[in-house]
Amino acid sequence: MEKKRTYDYRIEPRDVDFMKRATLMALADYILHTAGEDADRNGFGVRDLNLHNASWVLTRMALEVVRMPAEYESVRVTTWVSAVTRAMTTRNFEVFGADGTLLACAVTNWAMIDLSARRMLDLHTLPAYDSMTQDFPLPAPLPCRLGPVAGGREWGHTVVYSDLDFNCHVNSVKYIQWAVDTLPLEAVERGRFARTDINFIREARYGERLRIVVSAEDESLFEIRSEAGEAVCRLAFRME
Amino acid sequence: MEKKRTYDYRIEPRDVDFMKRATLMALADYILHTAGEDADRNGFGVRDLNLHNASWVLTRMALEVVRMPAEYESVRVTTWVSAVTRAMTTRNFEVFGADGTLLACAVTNWAMIDLSARRMLDLHTLPAYDSMTQDFPLPAPLPCRLGPVAGGREWGHTVVYSDLDFNCHVNSVKYIQWAVDTLPLEAVERGRFARTDINFIREARYGERLRIVVSAEDESLFEIRSEAGEAVCRLAFRME
Repeated sequence: MEKKRTYDYRIEPRDVDFMKRATLMALADYILHTAGEDADRNGFGVRDLNLHNASWVLTRMALEVVRMPAEYESVRVTTWVSAVTRAMTTRNFEVFGADGTLLACAVTNWAMIDLSARRMLDLHTLPAYDSMTQDFPLPAPLPCRLGPVAGGREWGHTVVYSDLDFNCHVNSVKYIQWAVDTLPLEAVERGRFARTDINFIREARYGERLRIVVSAEDESLFEIRSEAGEAVCRLAFRME
Repeated sequence: MEKKRTYDYRIEPRDVDFMKRATLMALADYILHTAGEDADRNGFGVRDLNLHNASWVLTRMALEVVRMPAEYESVRVTTWVSAVTRAMTTRNFEVFGADGTLLACAVTNWAMIDLSARRMLDLHTLPAYDSMTQDFPLPAPLPCRLGPVAGGREWGHTVVYSDLDFNCHVNSVKYIQWAVDTLPLEAVERGRFARTDINFIREARYGERLRIVVSAEDESLFEIRSEAGEAVCRLAFRME
């Protein structure tokens, strides 16, 4: 297969913020939705994996934004798989605007887990999958590994019903939301999320009490951690 | 015009909860989205009103659910306007499942406001609007007026960036989310939101500190209020 597959969307009113531009969460949602659709159409989506008591888990994400799409703007998302190891696969994305210019791109890493044992599975057991990889250059550098965050300001959050997704754990996009919501409104208004790196470290479950912690040394670094201090997710924003 | 206009959607993974059924918030979102689309296509959408420095504001909503649509289910939403007075218009909705059965219905009331003065405008100044009304029977009883709630348990919430919509105030669906999230998970798992009544009383803005209050006398009644105790929104769930 020599073409990047494409998926078309329109930025809807519910996707936009008070500036009538897509939120970082909505953009991440369209990208993750595309991952799901593309896996589904090629026979290794969550529905297929569920038949074998397995599922996909997003482990890292890098998301670069050139320009946030506007309300009602048509966007085209391309996607392709670029590498598969035993433990991890890399899936890439580009987002183009109505005028054909590149608005954003993303590089994501995924693992396959056994739903009962919540343990990683060997990706080479998906034989069709290897043949899916394509050799296009990565649209952005791979997601970074983010180290522990020495805590500064923090907020508490108890995981509620609306935080959960179909996997029965906190939806990946919620971590982005919690971090973005701690930023001063002026920062979101004037800045651009030039690059966001996210490490999803472990699942968070219903009723769990989490802390959203901003690094004392660098206000662009965040850690979502359990009450006991165990890291659940780390994020780094580079705003320009 | 003698036909109800229809809008087709598919329930996407991001719309569903841990039971892989649409959340009440997602269902309300599709209904409100349909209102926006239908107004837009008929020349009195938010974009048209904005040209005259005006916008639509949802004042009341009644939402009845027979069965929550499942993940990937195709749904068809019908909509029509049934009444217009100087201050208010009534817009109705039915939601049908892939098998053609009625899944849900809604009756909503809307006012038109001047965006600078934040004051209500006379709907008869929209001449094309009167001719839009259709005489189909209401799909459910009109939204109820909900009285003050004598407070019992309560939670605090400060309005953040992701709560705001394109009108720069808290998104209507967020009030539903805040109330639903206070319910025990078992209630959402076993019950059905047979009917929800919502009164949107005033706008809430960025940084405002709100209290989500459950009635001490009736755990199905909620009031979102300001720190000073002023009501912002009231909700009543009837679960079956």
